[in-house]
Amino acid sequence: MFYLICYDITEDNRRNRVAKVLETYGMRVQQSVFEAVLNETEYHQLQARLLKLLNKRQDQLRFYPLSPANRDRIVILGRQPEFTVDALTFIV
Amino acid sequence: MFYLICYDITEDNRRNRVAKVLETYGMRVQQSVFEAVLNETEYHQLQARLLKLLNKRQDQLRFYPLSPANRDRIVILGRQPEFTVDALTFIV
Repeated sequence: MFYLICYDITEDNRRNRVAKVLETYGMRVQQSVFEAVLNETEYHQLQARLLKLLNKRQDQLRFYPLSPANRDRIVILGRQPEFTVDALTFIV
Repeated sequence: MFYLICYDITEDNRRNRVAKVLETYGMRVQQSVFEAVLNETEYHQLQARLLKLLNKRQDQLRFYPLSPANRDRIVILGRQPEFTVDALTFIV
């Protein structure tokens, strides 16, 4: 399943560590926004790893699942991306 | 239709103006991330207004549509929101 993952993390160290984990599962598309294609195991594994890093009172991280049909309806205004998450291989 | 809208805009003035427009259509859920429930007219109207504000080479703005079923599968880790976009009324 395709997911959009975005986060609000104020503390630099924590934010960098979360971004590092996300980079092993998906592709950064904006400053605090990632895209990832995850199976069920990877999805739960990623959430478990991220939960260990988050300060649950201060930080927030969101997973938005998109269907293949809605994924085709994503609209990008302005600067266009060079490639899509499918062009990359992730070793998790 | 429910949309997740996120942007990467480096220049402060432009970013503030984009955020102001988005606030009339939806709810800010993270620093540069909004949720909005838009009909077809509002969707095209919003994109037209945002396109006028963007620097098309530097800025990037993304619309991710979610189906009602996938909207129910949104997962929020950490700090939980006080309310949802549906609790708000927008006059556009």
